[in-house]
Amino acid sequence: MPALSAQRRDLDFLLFDMLGVQGLTRAPRFVEHSRETFGAALDAAQEIAEREYAPLNALLDADEPRMVNGEVRLPAELKPALAKALAAGFNAATFDADQGGMQLPQVVAQSCWALFKGACVAADTYCSLSIGVANMLSRFGTPAQRATYLGPLLSGRCFGTMVLTEPQAGSALADVRASATPLAHGGYAIRAQKIFITAGDHGLAENIVHLVLARLPDAPAGVKGLSLFIVPKYRVEPDGSCGAANDVVLAGLIHKMGSKGTTSALLQFGAQGACVGELLGEPHQGLACMFHMMNEARINVGIAATMLAAAGYRHALAYARERVQGRASADPRSNPVPIVRHADVRRMLLAQKAIAEGGLSLCLQGALWADEQQVADSAQARDLAGALLDLMTPVIKAWCASQGRVANALAIQVLGGYGYTRDHPVEQHYRDNRLNSIHEGTDGIQALDLLGRKVGARGGEALAALGRLVASTIAQSRLSPPLAELAAALERAWGELHDTTALLVRELPRAPQLALANASLYLHVFGHTVVAWMWLRQALAAASRLESPDQAFHQAKLAATHYFFRYELPQTRPLHDLLRRLDPLLTELDDAVL
Amino acid sequence: MPALSAQRRDLDFLLFDMLGVQGLTRAPRFVEHSRETFGAALDAAQEIAEREYAPLNALLDADEPRMVNGEVRLPAELKPALAKALAAGFNAATFDADQGGMQLPQVVAQSCWALFKGACVAADTYCSLSIGVANMLSRFGTPAQRATYLGPLLSGRCFGTMVLTEPQAGSALADVRASATPLAHGGYAIRAQKIFITAGDHGLAENIVHLVLARLPDAPAGVKGLSLFIVPKYRVEPDGSCGAANDVVLAGLIHKMGSKGTTSALLQFGAQGACVGELLGEPHQGLACMFHMMNEARINVGIAATMLAAAGYRHALAYARERVQGRASADPRSNPVPIVRHADVRRMLLAQKAIAEGGLSLCLQGALWADEQQVADSAQARDLAGALLDLMTPVIKAWCASQGRVANALAIQVLGGYGYTRDHPVEQHYRDNRLNSIHEGTDGIQALDLLGRKVGARGGEALAALGRLVASTIAQSRLSPPLAELAAALERAWGELHDTTALLVRELPRAPQLALANASLYLHVFGHTVVAWMWLRQALAAASRLESPDQAFHQAKLAATHYFFRYELPQTRPLHDLLRRLDPLLTELDDAVL
Repeated sequence: MPALSAQRRDLDFLLFDMLGVQGLTRAPRFVEHSRETFGAALDAAQEIAEREYAPLNALLDADEPRMVNGEVRLPAELKPALAKALAAGFNAATFDADQGGMQLPQVVAQSCWALFKGACVAADTYCSLSIGVANMLSRFGTPAQRATYLGPLLSGRCFGTMVLTEPQAGSALADVRASATPLAHGGYAIRAQKIFITAGDHGLAENIVHLVLARLPDAPAGVKGLSLFIVPKYRVEPDGSCGAANDVVLAGLIHKMGSKGTTSALLQFGAQGACVGELLGEPHQGLACMFHMMNEARINVGIAATMLAAAGYRHALAYARERVQGRASADPRSNPVPIVRHADVRRMLLAQKAIAEGGLSLCLQGALWADEQQVADSAQARDLAGALLDLMTPVIKAWCASQGRVANALAIQVLGGYGYTRDHPVEQHYRDNRLNSIHEGTDGIQALDLLGRKVGARGGEALAALGRLVASTIAQSRLSPPLAELAAALERAWGELHDTTALLVRELPRAPQLALANASLYLHVFGHTVVAWMWLRQALAAASRLESPDQAFHQAKLAATHYFFRYELPQTRPLHDLLRRLDPLLTELDDAVL
Repeated sequence: MPALSAQRRDLDFLLFDMLGVQGLTRAPRFVEHSRETFGAALDAAQEIAEREYAPLNALLDADEPRMVNGEVRLPAELKPALAKALAAGFNAATFDADQGGMQLPQVVAQSCWALFKGACVAADTYCSLSIGVANMLSRFGTPAQRATYLGPLLSGRCFGTMVLTEPQAGSALADVRASATPLAHGGYAIRAQKIFITAGDHGLAENIVHLVLARLPDAPAGVKGLSLFIVPKYRVEPDGSCGAANDVVLAGLIHKMGSKGTTSALLQFGAQGACVGELLGEPHQGLACMFHMMNEARINVGIAATMLAAAGYRHALAYARERVQGRASADPRSNPVPIVRHADVRRMLLAQKAIAEGGLSLCLQGALWADEQQVADSAQARDLAGALLDLMTPVIKAWCASQGRVANALAIQVLGGYGYTRDHPVEQHYRDNRLNSIHEGTDGIQALDLLGRKVGARGGEALAALGRLVASTIAQSRLSPPLAELAAALERAWGELHDTTALLVRELPRAPQLALANASLYLHVFGHTVVAWMWLRQALAAASRLESPDQAFHQAKLAATHYFFRYELPQTRPLHDLLRRLDPLLTELDDAVL
């Protein structure tokens, strides 16, 4: 798997040379760790990714989940592969050592899981959802709930899901109708029809723990009336063993264009009146709770999208080095050359690299903020890291998803006709990655979150803090003459973003529809600007390592940085003009006029 | 099929209100025609598209061609559907009345075929290739060749293919190895291994006529040594009936991501030494001949890409009007609204409309130039129309393909999770359309053709002529106050394109690699600029019809024009900067540095 080795090499660079995550080992929580233990975890993940997950990728796509006798049938090869990752402890990667966890920082654990995603994202999804549910129980569960579910979720005896969407309520969670009625002897009777439930049913584990959004009687309308319930597929006996079925019925499967290996189910809860759940967290606080899981899932989506982009890039690069086609001169008697010599192919390769590795570095920066939110020295620093993570989550999710798709389209293009066939993996990457702009909140929802809530939150505190970080990179780059020009370009771009943001945030209370009309384009501009920042940081780390034996690796980082600054970042300029004009075209349009 | 009715409505507008194709009936060749006869042909095509082709689209995708006992097996429903189009005379739409043809202008015939493509492009491809082969024989064939093949191709007794690609020679036709050895008693022994042959085998007709690129003995190296041969699947007896098999063996099928209904085959010619072909046209002139068919095919690709974009747009629009989700106000007790009310959804719909209808109008303008090349009053006008068509062919092909894909991605996004399922057609559009940037010359090849050959040809004569047409639209728009601002924007954009082109063409002889390095971006800019011109022409036609009963249709045209000028056209500015900088990043890169 040369692709995964290359990705591992890049992760090492991003984690240790750019982000300096080894600094986390100064925090008491990670004091037992070192760069070596981080590396060992990555080694173990890489081996499982290569040996267990990679062979599954095409297989899960070709043999999608089927419904047989009311249950989901998956390829037999999936369960033993997941068992390897579970046995190695990767579901418990961030959990405390005394819970049997590795007590790794988020940013290192995410890097391990990223290798799984790069090999077979459909397989990894079953585990990543279970980890999300374990984190939720760990944070919001009662001691009894934790005792019942946490161990099985971390060991893989039990898998988890998040259950939000209903046929009439996709992006609009305010319209969720699922009901929860208190029962005389404790617990709640759950009634719900849910759709698009990822990993909603399967035979991979003894039990499945669904976290279900539903309304208590007399709950207020809208999202403030949602509560969260733990609803197992099989009731759990006092000794922890699985009991009777809990009236959670598989009503159908969704047949998708890609990401086929991940089951997507229609589930009916309580059709027989016999589905029992327990409340997780406080009544009517369900959405706030769920957002903890959702935000984690959004980082996961960003990483999956960039790892798919990286997988496509690596395949296209290997192909371009081998495939001989066309000539460097007009003389037909000259020898044909590998297509990596053609400028247009190089452009497509650099574009993919810039998206994949630039996006991944942004995701990992997000994960590092998640760690700093927990372990930074001061309350202020922890608070700020949390605010930065909140600010960046929609950008990580939506920018990586939409740009990852662009990268995967280019991978197909490098292969030409061969790339369009099912004999190469790039067409699957393209289909798989299309999902990432949709699930866990569409690109449009992320954009409204960013511009409508995040940038203006607490007086724009997080954006200002981000601006200070960007300014520090700019100052550092000015000291390195070859990067000074890029520093100036980033300073201009940041200034533009600052001004556009100020204008839109000022307009929001007066004319929210108009200010938010082009939120998606705002997110695109925001993403391009922060990814330029990430590339400048990568360039700084690479420029100081040009004398190392791995010179080509570092020069490639500089080439991708230059590509991003010359080809991508300037595209934000006309979008700033558009955003500032508060153009009423979209808001004033008559519905009939389309 | 509301989508096809809407497309038909748009075709009527583009043909009669914008392009004024009824003016062609002044030419002696079309004097028997009128707007009514054109409309009757479109009516017939629409009926066949709706009744015969549309039901096939999902079916051909789900049940792709299989190889059974050395032959291709296709769904049984395909043949009778094609028979309807053939019986109605659509293969002979542009042929002379005395050959049994409709003697329609290209632009009208292409509009009829566009309706077939909008309903099921995979099915239409079998016919469109046969039409291409018929045109080639009509132009380059001897009287005997025409007598043998033309009738069967037009009636559908026989289908056609174009056979260029070999495993080692995709974009690089200079490396084609197929050989043709003169036989003692006339004809040539053909030996070739060919790949990606569209409609290369099937049981839809008695015979298949392959047009094969191959080298005569002692042919010069490169593309100047290619000749073209007529190679039937079954030898043709003197009485026109099918004789023995001609040693054309189906060696395998290509399994694609999309466009699955169109067979793509590996063919082996002459493995038993028993494949006989006849020369079509002059020796060593094969590529020049083939380019007549290829250029036609490129217009077909552009139309297919825009019709897929239109199909996705129409489906997304219908969905957005029905799907209720989210609110116009923050009050959760207010009623949810159809998603067409949300600005982001409107942006995505207008973007699709701008691409689909803007692209289609450009394709039809190309087809109209093809007609004017035949029937314009003066030799000079005919010559100029041909030059304009030559110039625009790569833009039509590549811009429509790459932008069509963008539109289809947006259609999925409007539908959200539902769009990613196989229950809606938009995911198939997305997969099908991905092919269009690859076949008949990749986007990169089109870009080299445009910048490396076309814009500078004959001293830039075609570009200058195009500039005069653009200037005339600008002058006309200035007289209509609401459009004056757009006229000024187009004038600026055209000026930029002119200047960038002049700079690059000047640089070409000195530093071809550098001048061509960003040819793909140049084509994108060129496409955006000419599509802006097409939209301004649509706006002119619409603005004068706002009092008509169909007011919403015309206002929508104005909305899409404004969208294109505010959201799309400004994106060309940073690309001009990049192009003019003659940036050496791509050309100076070391191969190892990627």
